[in-house]
Amino acid sequence: MAQGEFELIGRYFAQLGAARADVRIGVGDDGAVLMPPAARELVAVTDSLVEDVHFPKGSPAASIGHRAFAVNFSDIAAMGAEPTWALLALTLPESDEEWLEQFSRAAGDLCRRHGVALVGGDTTRGPLSVTVTVLGFVPIGVALERKGGQPGDAVYVTGSPGDSAAGLALEQNRLHVADAMSAQILRDRFLFPTPRCEVGVGLRGLASACIDVSDGLGGDLEKLCLASGCGAQIDAAALPVSDALVSAVGRELAREYALTGGEDYELLFTVPLARLGAMTHAMALGLGPVTRIGSLVSGNGVRVFTRGGVMQFSGAGFDHFAR
Amino acid sequence: MAQGEFELIGRYFAQLGAARADVRIGVGDDGAVLMPPAARELVAVTDSLVEDVHFPKGSPAASIGHRAFAVNFSDIAAMGAEPTWALLALTLPESDEEWLEQFSRAAGDLCRRHGVALVGGDTTRGPLSVTVTVLGFVPIGVALERKGGQPGDAVYVTGSPGDSAAGLALEQNRLHVADAMSAQILRDRFLFPTPRCEVGVGLRGLASACIDVSDGLGGDLEKLCLASGCGAQIDAAALPVSDALVSAVGRELAREYALTGGEDYELLFTVPLARLGAMTHAMALGLGPVTRIGSLVSGNGVRVFTRGGVMQFSGAGFDHFAR
Repeated sequence: MAQGEFELIGRYFAQLGAARADVRIGVGDDGAVLMPPAARELVAVTDSLVEDVHFPKGSPAASIGHRAFAVNFSDIAAMGAEPTWALLALTLPESDEEWLEQFSRAAGDLCRRHGVALVGGDTTRGPLSVTVTVLGFVPIGVALERKGGQPGDAVYVTGSPGDSAAGLALEQNRLHVADAMSAQILRDRFLFPTPRCEVGVGLRGLASACIDVSDGLGGDLEKLCLASGCGAQIDAAALPVSDALVSAVGRELAREYALTGGEDYELLFTVPLARLGAMTHAMALGLGPVTRIGSLVSGNGVRVFTRGGVMQFSGAGFDHFAR
Repeated sequence: MAQGEFELIGRYFAQLGAARADVRIGVGDDGAVLMPPAARELVAVTDSLVEDVHFPKGSPAASIGHRAFAVNFSDIAAMGAEPTWALLALTLPESDEEWLEQFSRAAGDLCRRHGVALVGGDTTRGPLSVTVTVLGFVPIGVALERKGGQPGDAVYVTGSPGDSAAGLALEQNRLHVADAMSAQILRDRFLFPTPRCEVGVGLRGLASACIDVSDGLGGDLEKLCLASGCGAQIDAAALPVSDALVSAVGRELAREYALTGGEDYELLFTVPLARLGAMTHAMALGLGPVTRIGSLVSGNGVRVFTRGGVMQFSGAGFDHFAR
């Protein structure tokens, strides 16, 4: 296919997302010209989705379009920022109108929902992969970081981690579930994750540290602990596993999915004890779906308390024999 | 290879490029937190390099690292902006220390030369491709665009277009050149293009329109004309072909390379007649290597005047039969 066709593809993205008055020059020139708000810090994130790595071959175009932006919005949310503008670098093997139509509609829907304008991009022929860069803003000095957590801080997570990993296993026929409705819910949680942007903004001034859960709750909590210079203990019984996941795989395995699954795009964050009252208040006012699952402790590493004992998290998984 | 190794790769990029005081949080958290300067517009660009599309399989890692940033700096330059921060999304099939060492050293050298800090990124396993996003700044309202050119405006180009395409042909063994020194110069022009950042900044208030030459001078001039609502005529004899290119392929073919080659990353821009005095002055003060090659005219399309007649540019090439 001629490269010219790929330039035509760019037209799919000319008006994608929200219309924003702060976009002076958008898609179509050598670069976008944007008007940053005064007295804000700029937050910039970039994440790639590569076929056969982040999604199975043959994944629906709508899911790829949604996820490419959602995973970046999730990173923006983890910093306590609001997403504003996005750039899309799309590499695809052929110009397939129906694919592009579905990809761009799903991406556009999610961008509009979050008030984000697509302002630039690049389309190339090659193996299917999508790299999105998202820019957002946060008031000066209040961005959330992985560091900042202290021993004693409460550990919270949004949503119901584990669903997405089970959904991916279903998509890949590694898991079979009799209950069709639960299976569909889990698949959708993988295919169309919900970035927790409102929660991220609500955590400004509340959370002491924050990270988004992309590689699995246990591993990402370990990263937060490493950055904060402490350890964590988690109560397995407190993990917010969904009814769909429990119905699909049982409660024990559901907790394992929740701890090690990955691709959740939930927020994992800590709140100092002195702010637990404010946190409870924020939750009562509708902060969003958050659940306390444990505490930071002195030392290092992540330990999970179960009825049967204690599991020590180590890198890629849990050592069930540690006590 | 475990994904964990790829996280280690990220450490290659932890301190890449210039150290900038306006980077509050750089590589290593979920997002970068950056301090935009006051009273400036933000310019954002993103461009991918894909193996076998933008560079041949087996290209030197240093060249890939250099070009991935250079092509984006060129887009920033074409807007009249200065590059400030960059994000890198790198997908590579395996973790090869020597490759990463060379890639990151070349990328870092170019970034430091332009005062750019790498502030974030993502490293993934997959087919080799590099997507870089660069953010830069320009005083409010002075960004250069493709539109804005008027009939009568002089057309200029930087450097010596065509070298890069001949260098690529040499790399791919499609071209054979007896003169080893000319061959090396041309190869280097492809492998390590020079983004024209200083020229771009110097063109603020001077150029009426600007574009960077990535797809070939003729085709990119056509885009500038389309955006500006006019046509252009070029004097083939005025095209600044390099001695190396003429020595390698002869003067006639050198002009064809210059017009249709691509991958030049030179700036192509227009200057109103009323500002030609200021332009001459800027050139005398060291604006950079720029050459006048023709004029914008009313109508549309790009025509090239040669000693033998007139060629009409059309899409991918020139129709040698048009008179």
